[in-house]
Amino acid sequence: MTHRIVPTSFGCDILTPNGPMPIRQVLGIGLNYAAHAREQGSALPERPVVFVKSPASVIPDNSVIRIPKICQYREQVDFEGELAIVIGLSSQTGLPCKDVPRERVGEFIMGYAAANDISARWWQKTGSGGQFCRGKSFDTFCPIGDIQPAALVPNPNALRLTTRLNGQVMQDSSTSDMIFDCITLVSELSRGTTLLPGTVIVTGTPSGVGMARTPQVWLKAGDTVEVSIEGVGKVTSRVEVE
Amino acid sequence: MTHRIVPTSFGCDILTPNGPMPIRQVLGIGLNYAAHAREQGSALPERPVVFVKSPASVIPDNSVIRIPKICQYREQVDFEGELAIVIGLSSQTGLPCKDVPRERVGEFIMGYAAANDISARWWQKTGSGGQFCRGKSFDTFCPIGDIQPAALVPNPNALRLTTRLNGQVMQDSSTSDMIFDCITLVSELSRGTTLLPGTVIVTGTPSGVGMARTPQVWLKAGDTVEVSIEGVGKVTSRVEVE
Repeated sequence: MTHRIVPTSFGCDILTPNGPMPIRQVLGIGLNYAAHAREQGSALPERPVVFVKSPASVIPDNSVIRIPKICQYREQVDFEGELAIVIGLSSQTGLPCKDVPRERVGEFIMGYAAANDISARWWQKTGSGGQFCRGKSFDTFCPIGDIQPAALVPNPNALRLTTRLNGQVMQDSSTSDMIFDCITLVSELSRGTTLLPGTVIVTGTPSGVGMARTPQVWLKAGDTVEVSIEGVGKVTSRVEVE
Repeated sequence: MTHRIVPTSFGCDILTPNGPMPIRQVLGIGLNYAAHAREQGSALPERPVVFVKSPASVIPDNSVIRIPKICQYREQVDFEGELAIVIGLSSQTGLPCKDVPRERVGEFIMGYAAANDISARWWQKTGSGGQFCRGKSFDTFCPIGDIQPAALVPNPNALRLTTRLNGQVMQDSSTSDMIFDCITLVSELSRGTTLLPGTVIVTGTPSGVGMARTPQVWLKAGDTVEVSIEGVGKVTSRVEVE
C-alpha cells in the first residue's frame, strides 16, 4: 500500500504504518540527466550537484501550486518532473542513513514517489547569486505524490517518467538516463552527512522543461501539470497565481 | 534567561520555556559583509545570497566539530563566525513567518545566538557544481551557542563579533557592517516562503576567514575555535578528525 502525504500546520507528514513521519528536508540534484544538461548548455557534472528545497514547499497530490507575488514580475516559473527517493531508518539496524556503502543503500529507502521540482528560474539563476535554493523553495513549489514502498519498485533505475502540461506531453524519458542513479545518490550524499529520516531526494529532471523550449513555456494560472512515473505513481497540481 | 540547544536523536532541539522546539532548518547568507566579499574577490550582492545547511549539522556550545573522512583529502575546512537569528511564531498572532513587512519582523524573532558556519571550501566551491549547500552541511558543521531572547538584544545591528582560533583573534568586526541587516533578511526571506518555527538564519561572516589569509589557515585536529558576540553569547568548539 502506498504511503500518503498529508499537510500539517508546518510542512507535510508522511503517513506510514508506524505513524506520521515529518518531511525533514528535501535535497535536490541538479543536471542529473545528460539531455537536460545539454538543453541548459551545461557540462555533465562530475559529482552530484546538490541543492535544498524548503520543507515548507512540499504539497501532496491534487494540490495547488500558488505562484507567489515575488515571482510575478519575471514570469519564469517552470516544472521539472522527477523521481523522489524517501529516506527512513535502516530496516536492519534502526540507525539513520550516514556513510552507507552502495550495497546497503536498500535498507534506508522507504519508498519512491513522483515529484515536481517547481523552479522560479530568475530566482534560481540570478536573484540569489547563483545559489539555487531560494528559487526552488517558495511555498507549494514541491508537489510530491503518494509514496510507493521500495519493495514494490524492483528497479528504480528503469522507470518511464512523463510530465504533461494541460494534457500535452512535455517530458518523456526514463530514469535509466540519470547520470547518478538512485543507489549512487544515496550512498554519495550520506558521506559525512546524516540523511535524517524523512529526507526526500528529488533526483533531477530529464529534458523538456519550459525554459529550454522555443518559445519558452512558463506556468500560468489555470494550468494543470502532472508528473507520472511508471510503477511508482503520479502527482497532479493545478496552478494559481497569488 | 537564555534558551539552551540540546542534541536529540536527529538534530538538535531548542529548550524554550514552552517546551522543546526542533531546529527545522538552517538558512545561510553568503557574502553579507563588504570586507568579506572583497577578501573573496566577489562583487557586493544586490540581494541576499541564500543557501541551506543541514539541520543534522547543528551542535551546541562546547561540542566537537568532527572533520569527516570526505573532507580529508583536500584540507580546506574553515570557520565563519556569524550572528544567528532564531525564528518562532508571531508573538502577536501565533502565525508563522511569511510575507512579513519590516515593521513586524520583531514579532517573529525568538532570539539571537553566536554561530559558526563551518565550511569545507572545496565542497562549497567545486565539489557540488558551485552550490554551497553540501560543503556547509556535513555533520557537526553548525555550532550554535545558547540563544539570547530578542528582548535582551536591543540592537542586533551593532554587536561586536569576534572569532578566536586557539586564542588568537581571527575575525573582529561588528554586525553593523552587514550589507543586509537582520530586519531586512527576515522580511526578505519570508517573501513567498514560510520560515518555519525553528528556522535559524546564520547571517554571514565578516572578513578574516582562514581561506582568505596568507598563508591560508585550515582547521585541524586539536584546534579550539570560539565565536563570541557582544551581548548575545559565544560558541566554543573543539576540532577532531574522523
